[in-house]
Amino acid sequence: MSEVTFYFDFSSPYGYLAAERMEAFESRVGVTVTWRPFMIGAAFKQTGQSPLLSQPIRGTYFRHDMERCARLQNTPFHIPENFPYAALVPTRAFYWLESRSPMLARKFAKDIYRGYFADGLDMANPENVFAAASRHSINVSEMRAAVENQRWKDHTRTVTEEAISLGAFGSPFFFYEDEPFFGNDRLEQLAQWISLRKETAGSQSD
Amino acid sequence: MSEVTFYFDFSSPYGYLAAERMEAFESRVGVTVTWRPFMIGAAFKQTGQSPLLSQPIRGTYFRHDMERCARLQNTPFHIPENFPYAALVPTRAFYWLESRSPMLARKFAKDIYRGYFADGLDMANPENVFAAASRHSINVSEMRAAVENQRWKDHTRTVTEEAISLGAFGSPFFFYEDEPFFGNDRLEQLAQWISLRKETAGSQSD
Repeated sequence: MSEVTFYFDFSSPYGYLAAERMEAFESRVGVTVTWRPFMIGAAFKQTGQSPLLSQPIRGTYFRHDMERCARLQNTPFHIPENFPYAALVPTRAFYWLESRSPMLARKFAKDIYRGYFADGLDMANPENVFAAASRHSINVSEMRAAVENQRWKDHTRTVTEEAISLGAFGSPFFFYEDEPFFGNDRLEQLAQWISLRKETAGSQSD
Repeated sequence: MSEVTFYFDFSSPYGYLAAERMEAFESRVGVTVTWRPFMIGAAFKQTGQSPLLSQPIRGTYFRHDMERCARLQNTPFHIPENFPYAALVPTRAFYWLESRSPMLARKFAKDIYRGYFADGLDMANPENVFAAASRHSINVSEMRAAVENQRWKDHTRTVTEEAISLGAFGSPFFFYEDEPFFGNDRLEQLAQWISLRKETAGSQSD
């Protein structure tokens, strides 16, 4: 059973930093995390926000903050040349792959993030997305077809609408039960919250 | 010598939450913190931001987040009725008082914050500000005069301009040497940073 839902956009720096911490988080906290890429641009339309790094004054700080956060958590990180991009292709590919193998989909997601933020690959170019898939035992021609298939286009839109309706206005955004947590910098609090909730549940069942 | 500068606005919820943690932070990390109230509204004009709680969708989340953060750090907290307010009077009073006694100014600042966010006092009403001062051995008639004195009006403006020129676009905002940290949720990282810097300085002087 999934206990934490992890909404993120493949173009989100803090989403990448959170993704890199997710395995350690799961084993430390003792929860299962479901990965849910979505299209953050649709959320920005609702909130009237612009991408963080394009905001005057704040953009300068947050670029510095991302680089510092990455360094302190030992994650290779550079803002790519074509930042940000609309990550439709990797998002559709993710959901197609997840319908086959959730574990493989997660590996693929990490590769997409690392390719973009660590290796500077242009993930707006579908060929780089397919190249990431080809490193695993994934049928790339099926993936090519899937990202053009209406089913996965619709699924991407549905997940995005669902995320926004739950209140996910940024990336990363986490839910535990109905409790929302925004940002890579809320992972510690999420861990604390889960631990408190489990204590409560434990004492109630005594 | 002051090592950390703590910029905050007296109307800022996360500034209040940080202020409540400041003494424990100082003794744990082994640094001195200089308190610098400033007028966040002037910074918002530069960045084009609006107050967090008035932003669509985000406002709902951040209200919840503030309340959760307060609960998890055991700080009494409610969003006051007249939230936010332009905290000119307490800011001027702070700097006048600081010129007499920095320690007393800090106690006064904590009282202003607690009066507003814990006790629901309307701090836009100068009488509530003076009442907070009267609990300490502060000459209230001198404070009344000081908040109308051009010197402390100018000083408040100067500190605000300085904060903005350093890049402080929100509250709380911290600097250690030239390194900027935004938010109550960066206090742990600030502590980590200071510890790493001291290690580096220590190994260089060996």
